[in-house]
Amino acid sequence: MTKKGKYSNVHYQNYLGLDALLGTQVLRSVQLGKPAHEEMLFIITHQVYELWFKQIIHELKSVIEMFAEEKLDERNIGNVIARLNRVEKVLQLLIDQIGVMETMTPLDFLDFREYLFPASGFQSVQFRMIESLLGLAEDQRMTYHNQKYSSVFPEDQQKELADIYANGPLFEWVNKWLERTPFLKTPGFDFIQKYKEAVQRMLEKETLAIRASDYLTTEDKEKREAMLGSTDSYFKAILSEENHNQLIKEGKKRLSYKATVAALFINLYRDEPILHLPFQLLTNLVDIDDLMTSWRYRHAQMVMRMLGNKIGTGGSSGHQYLNKTAERHKIFADFHTISTLLIPRSQLPELPTALKQQLSYHFTQTQHHDL
Amino acid sequence: MTKKGKYSNVHYQNYLGLDALLGTQVLRSVQLGKPAHEEMLFIITHQVYELWFKQIIHELKSVIEMFAEEKLDERNIGNVIARLNRVEKVLQLLIDQIGVMETMTPLDFLDFREYLFPASGFQSVQFRMIESLLGLAEDQRMTYHNQKYSSVFPEDQQKELADIYANGPLFEWVNKWLERTPFLKTPGFDFIQKYKEAVQRMLEKETLAIRASDYLTTEDKEKREAMLGSTDSYFKAILSEENHNQLIKEGKKRLSYKATVAALFINLYRDEPILHLPFQLLTNLVDIDDLMTSWRYRHAQMVMRMLGNKIGTGGSSGHQYLNKTAERHKIFADFHTISTLLIPRSQLPELPTALKQQLSYHFTQTQHHDL
Amino acid sequence: MTKKGKYSNVHYQNYLGLDALLGTQVLRSVQLGKPAHEEMLFIITHQVYELWFKQIIHELKSVIEMFAEEKLDERNIGNVIARLNRVEKVLQLLIDQIGVMETMTPLDFLDFREYLFPASGFQSVQFRMIESLLGLAEDQRMTYHNQKYSSVFPEDQQKELADIYANGPLFEWVNKWLERTPFLKTPGFDFIQKYKEAVQRMLEKETLAIRASDYLTTEDKEKREAMLGSTDSYFKAILSEENHNQLIKEGKKRLSYKATVAALFINLYRDEPILHLPFQLLTNLVDIDDLMTSWRYRHAQMVMRMLGNKIGTGGSSGHQYLNKTAERHKIFADFHTISTLLIPRSQLPELPTALKQQLSYHFTQTQHHDL
Amino acid sequence: MTKKGKYSNVHYQNYLGLDALLGTQVLRSVQLGKPAHEEMLFIITHQVYELWFKQIIHELKSVIEMFAEEKLDERNIGNVIARLNRVEKVLQLLIDQIGVMETMTPLDFLDFREYLFPASGFQSVQFRMIESLLGLAEDQRMTYHNQKYSSVFPEDQQKELADIYANGPLFEWVNKWLERTPFLKTPGFDFIQKYKEAVQRMLEKETLAIRASDYLTTEDKEKREAMLGSTDSYFKAILSEENHNQLIKEGKKRLSYKATVAALFINLYRDEPILHLPFQLLTNLVDIDDLMTSWRYRHAQMVMRMLGNKIGTGGSSGHQYLNKTAERHKIFADFHTISTLLIPRSQLPELPTALKQQLSYHFTQTQHHDL
Repeated sequence: MTKKGKYSNVHYQNYLGLDALLGTQVLRSVQLGKPAHEEMLFIITHQVYELWFKQIIHELKSVIEMFAEEKLDERNIGNVIARLNRVEKVLQLLIDQIGVMETMTPLDFLDFREYLFPASGFQSVQFRMIESLLGLAEDQRMTYHNQKYSSVFPEDQQKELADIYANGPLFEWVNKWLERTPFLKTPGFDFIQKYKEAVQRMLEKETLAIRASDYLTTEDKEKREAMLGSTDSYFKAILSEENHNQLIKEGKKRLSYKATVAALFINLYRDEPILHLPFQLLTNLVDIDDLMTSWRYRHAQMVMRMLGNKIGTGGSSGHQYLNKTAERHKIFADFHTISTLLIPRSQLPELPTALKQQLSYHFTQTQHHDL
Repeated sequence: MTKKGKYSNVHYQNYLGLDALLGTQVLRSVQLGKPAHEEMLFIITHQVYELWFKQIIHELKSVIEMFAEEKLDERNIGNVIARLNRVEKVLQLLIDQIGVMETMTPLDFLDFREYLFPASGFQSVQFRMIESLLGLAEDQRMTYHNQKYSSVFPEDQQKELADIYANGPLFEWVNKWLERTPFLKTPGFDFIQKYKEAVQRMLEKETLAIRASDYLTTEDKEKREAMLGSTDSYFKAILSEENHNQLIKEGKKRLSYKATVAALFINLYRDEPILHLPFQLLTNLVDIDDLMTSWRYRHAQMVMRMLGNKIGTGGSSGHQYLNKTAERHKIFADFHTISTLLIPRSQLPELPTALKQQLSYHFTQTQHHDL
Repeated sequence: MTKKGKYSNVHYQNYLGLDALLGTQVLRSVQLGKPAHEEMLFIITHQVYELWFKQIIHELKSVIEMFAEEKLDERNIGNVIARLNRVEKVLQLLIDQIGVMETMTPLDFLDFREYLFPASGFQSVQFRMIESLLGLAEDQRMTYHNQKYSSVFPEDQQKELADIYANGPLFEWVNKWLERTPFLKTPGFDFIQKYKEAVQRMLEKETLAIRASDYLTTEDKEKREAMLGSTDSYFKAILSEENHNQLIKEGKKRLSYKATVAALFINLYRDEPILHLPFQLLTNLVDIDDLMTSWRYRHAQMVMRMLGNKIGTGGSSGHQYLNKTAERHKIFADFHTISTLLIPRSQLPELPTALKQQLSYHFTQTQHHDL
Repeated sequence: MTKKGKYSNVHYQNYLGLDALLGTQVLRSVQLGKPAHEEMLFIITHQVYELWFKQIIHELKSVIEMFAEEKLDERNIGNVIARLNRVEKVLQLLIDQIGVMETMTPLDFLDFREYLFPASGFQSVQFRMIESLLGLAEDQRMTYHNQKYSSVFPEDQQKELADIYANGPLFEWVNKWLERTPFLKTPGFDFIQKYKEAVQRMLEKETLAIRASDYLTTEDKEKREAMLGSTDSYFKAILSEENHNQLIKEGKKRLSYKATVAALFINLYRDEPILHLPFQLLTNLVDIDDLMTSWRYRHAQMVMRMLGNKIGTGGSSGHQYLNKTAERHKIFADFHTISTLLIPRSQLPELPTALKQQLSYHFTQTQHHDL
């Protein structure tokens, strides 16, 4: 494009680079003289995936950039949420798109499968970048033929992946942002202390009520007390920084203690006006994790359907690999499990008036005011 | 259920009233001795619709209640949005569900269609309640066989519908809430005046640039100026309360002038922290309108597919009726058209610092602070 | 790619042409020095549309090719259906994808909208090709600024569009295929004659039953007879070739008489084994039409949301244009309205045994046979 | 309803039993004097599930009935497919519906969760019926607190579940139907023998080609040969009835040898006209299995989100239980793995002309024929 400025005569065809774009579907089966109708679908589906991956990367990078300013400008939190919402919509599309791929039958796939060897979805650097940007830890990744996941990429791409980690993935930036949460310990209000008391009160009350019940059978009472007990151990971790740090050492937790306490606070007091958006943001992270997991499971199903138990063109038994990554490659698991720590609103420690004030803002006026 | 208290032994089957629920599928074709397999689908699909309608009504009523307090408690705006989000998800499900109904072929439908006469979807009082709760004006409704839409309902249901209007539908409460928006005219900042100037500056600059362009053909220049001109008329309405009120009189606008200005302000300055949620709420209204419209169009398609041009069991040519309501029964059209009035961020009048301060809140601290 | 043959070392990155593909996102806003984050979404969304359009064209062309053989090889009917099913899945994806585009707000769009002028979706030649391949008649198309729709394309693309019509679009091939349906008039069975008698019997019986009813009010009886009457006129057209041809002349029908009778036959006797797939195929056509219509409506909604009543970059008021094409650009309307002509299975003229035999085939054996 | 006959005055409200239906939402939280807004969603979502479950049961029972006739009437195969397609659409809706439930936050759930104890989704007898109708073997089921899954149901429901097994679930009927497939061994054509030869030819040719390749590295050659080898073991099972029966004994296969061979034949020769619908049917079974699996995974995600690692109201750790059933409760796995056995069309043994004739039928005529 020349420097004609904004009033040059832009045409849809050029603006979108359609000549180049629509020239990239080169069917190997055609090149080899045995045209397979379905190879077009195979190529286009994967190309669409890659275009959407580029979009997701564009969003995640911009989100990380916003976090990376010393203080997340509050003007930006709405933007962060909007962009993560978009990532979710794209991920949902990627899941639905598997149904299009599945209109190709296994027999159709065999018409050209051998020409692809050894190309494989494992070679999608953009997908790896998404995992890294979100924060999949390197040591959390499944190895693949005992080689580092990034060994299949050329050097410049390996460097790009390394840079993402060097720069800090989303997980870490969220961790830091949470750690900066004020309000958790103000004169006259120590959140974690109040929470501890509330949990104890709740558990004791519950135990008494169970034992006193005329309607529960002995068995019911036992079950119910067992439920309380099992819950108890989760509370213990959050109520002691030492326990929490021990879990981190054992690789069972990743979010820092301070950040976890903040996330709990946001979840419990999300009805307070200025916590609405932070709560929304934490929900986005859980949503994205769930969508990635769903995509992995659906992808595994598709691979099973196409290849049965055959080994994929990349040399792996794709179905098993994908199914395993579904649970293992979860990134925001610590946010999922916060639900374990919630207590009913009726049991929540009341916030001091001053703090409540701080957490409010006023958008509208009462009707008595004049504009 | 007895008074056994919270520790009574609740069973899934009883809790959900499954005996009653699963006893309500009474096939007319079976009663008349000519069992039609597909009638089950017909009944269950409609029952599911009615259950979801009940859910939507539950949400809309609660939202209106929150608005109806003298001042929408800011704690509640997050709740309002969450519930409208839910209504959207349910509406999307209702649209998708049409695909299930369409698995019944027209010939299958003929196996029992005559037994239903003259029952009709027009007799769903819950659907009318949803339209009314959202704010479909009574005089906006298409008449049906020259009778008031509510004439097919028994008296108590007619009263219920009347009460919704008496109590104020969502549209009106939003209108009032918008009118209470502060910030629009503060000492040193008159939003609409500043906006007017910005629009004029923008239009003039644009016109000059077009005329001076070396790259546009004469024809392009004309087209481009025409675009500016057509836009101009929309700006005129918003810039004069009189013009706006005239449009209301002619039935072309419904939102009050004050509320429209507020909605414009929120759209333009939505990056300011405390406008995030109000902007989200206005978006919800547009989304819901669009989903209702999509549902009507899809419903019209389904009716065409089932009956062709036949007259429905309710005596109407359903396809045409539904297609007409799709555009005519829009409720939040005034929010859709606000896009016409937007100007690029680069042209936006800057807010005075004091106001900017008012529109901010601070969730996190800088890292230099101690907790 | 070199001639290395099927065992060359294919890499995912090269196979998919990712370097070229991911190099086609050139943001005008970046070029002009005012980077707009959201332009990436705008470009990628449209590129994904174009990739899917290419896929749809690939399928439609192959389907037409199969029809264009003198006789549609029965081995191919399954293929035709499979590929049309795929087109449906892709269209559904394109509809869902609008939701992704709508995550861009109107204000965001304004950040770069002016740089696109006068590019426009009207300039997508692939979309026009899809309409043409399906069979949208040239004189059915809405004109656009009083110019032929194809005038915005360069000559070679205009020729491509012309060739599609010269070669015959899907509609015409289906019309011919239907006209070749045997079974409609065999010794001892004249379908349309038998159908005529059945319709008359049905209408008379119905009229008598209505008049004799003890339960219907006079008003109900009138309504019900009116329903019969209105239906009657539809039957008249199908029962007379002259009437039908008159409707074709008036532009109210497009499918030939012979083909219409065949389509009716397939709809009525679709339970016969060898009519299963032909019925499925006719259903595909109706589905595709409905999906195209849904896409146009949703697209119109999105344009309204982005631009309000503003004129689009292409110089048209996009919302209105798109909304109008939704009903007017229907291609397979004659198949939709066949439902009007269906009569209940209980009224269907029985097929002679010999014909019934012809319409059957046997996949499994009885258990008494030995393998 | 009275005996008024088909012209009685049916009203939508009565026809759908809306008074009863809309009276079944009894909120425990309201009864106990602590109304929780979100309990309505909880009830209605589950009720909608149960309504759709009833629909699925209605379809599956009718499908089994059609199979249970000595020979599946070929007229019915289209019906079977249509009804299984519908089941798929409903299952997809059930998956999407989880997104509606997830609009309830964990904290909201805590407002009434304790009132539900110990009711649990494990008590849905209709869901168990669906699993049983499809063919989930009793010994395949995960036990739950070391008790038989059906122990939570009253006796009459346990009997209903037992009857389903006694009557034969879908899996068994499909197995029998496949075993009746003719064509597999006709004079002059022994399918499995021909297939064996083709496989051997293919593997040998492939091995030679790999070894002779100039382009593959030694490592590539080894990988590629390993792929062939691993495939080989799958072929061995299908090529020997003994091996197959051994796998059945070990619980690794369930489909009989004869049925497996037939399923393979249908997959390989699905382009033959009369195999189109049988192939479609086998695809339906795989689709349904995949949808059930997806539902279980999504359900597990939702439970994790609501409860974290807490134990469910039913006393189980719902997330883990559901995740485990996802893979373990697969029913049609033997149809998934058939893909392992497919060979490319180019390698397929040609069918003798006589057999090819048998597998054809002619819907249209050549154009030279007169109607």
